[in-house]
Amino acid sequence: MIDLKKYIVNVPDFPTPGISFKDITPLLNDAGAFHYVIEEFSQLVKQLKPTVILSPEARGFLFGPAVSFNSNVGFVPVRKPGKLPRTVVRKNYSLEYGENMLEMHLDAIKPNDRVLIIDDVLATGGTVKAICDLVEEQGATVVGLGFLINLTSVPKDSGLLKYSTTSLVEY
Amino acid sequence: MIDLKKYIVNVPDFPTPGISFKDITPLLNDAGAFHYVIEEFSQLVKQLKPTVILSPEARGFLFGPAVSFNSNVGFVPVRKPGKLPRTVVRKNYSLEYGENMLEMHLDAIKPNDRVLIIDDVLATGGTVKAICDLVEEQGATVVGLGFLINLTSVPKDSGLLKYSTTSLVEY
Repeated sequence: MIDLKKYIVNVPDFPTPGISFKDITPLLNDAGAFHYVIEEFSQLVKQLKPTVILSPEARGFLFGPAVSFNSNVGFVPVRKPGKLPRTVVRKNYSLEYGENMLEMHLDAIKPNDRVLIIDDVLATGGTVKAICDLVEEQGATVVGLGFLINLTSVPKDSGLLKYSTTSLVEY
Repeated sequence: MIDLKKYIVNVPDFPTPGISFKDITPLLNDAGAFHYVIEEFSQLVKQLKPTVILSPEARGFLFGPAVSFNSNVGFVPVRKPGKLPRTVVRKNYSLEYGENMLEMHLDAIKPNDRVLIIDDVLATGGTVKAICDLVEEQGATVVGLGFLINLTSVPKDSGLLKYSTTSLVEY
């Protein structure tokens, strides 16, 4: 058991005043701490038995593919608009200020797939909810959500309540 | 030995006419092929004995952290401007059209570090050359460059000749 908070730096007023940003780069720099995180996520794979692991760019890519490697489960990237070269499915979702869009390849997920979504931080959950919708619109099942960090003081999207959610550190 | 080209799709005229884009998402989707790639990069770690693995966002993150996990070597992310919350060092570099900038945290690399840079595609090498400069300006040594794909028909930045460079697939 590692105290992951030792490897996460609180940076006040980033990117905007009043926000306390969680800087995970010291965790990535420390091979032992990073190994621990990937092994913890891999336990989730053992429990939930996904057929696909899915993460959004960019910080989700720091964790999802390593879990995929360690668990022998295929990885699907979710990207910002215009990055994927073949036919995509996409989802618009609202941010606090403005809108955002995510895309994945149309052939990336099959109707029988069991999908585990991994990302670095759970705040409102708006991004991950959009990904869940996209997965389900393709007939696949979201078997769980895994986050390194849960910002528990941020109110969550109520549409996330039905999903099995695990986080490794809470603030 | 896996024929990686089976898992890489040529997409003509993406993102612009005349460019044949290498789509690596089928490779990520296939647990066996992805495992093979990470093991090949990990052999490079055994040979070159880096103290740090470094990759640029976003597609470099698909490989560098998994190699870091498998090799027990710390990972340092190189990011686009404005993403890293603490004091950074940065580098401007020229693209075919326009300029780009990369940043890493000032404390991410120490003067004695031996750095292995991993990314998905080597085209002109402009991005990786900028990273090499950034690493060396901090007094550290670039021990090697590892790429999934080398586009051999694209002329390389001559500043890369001095580095030990490995690619797993050539086009």
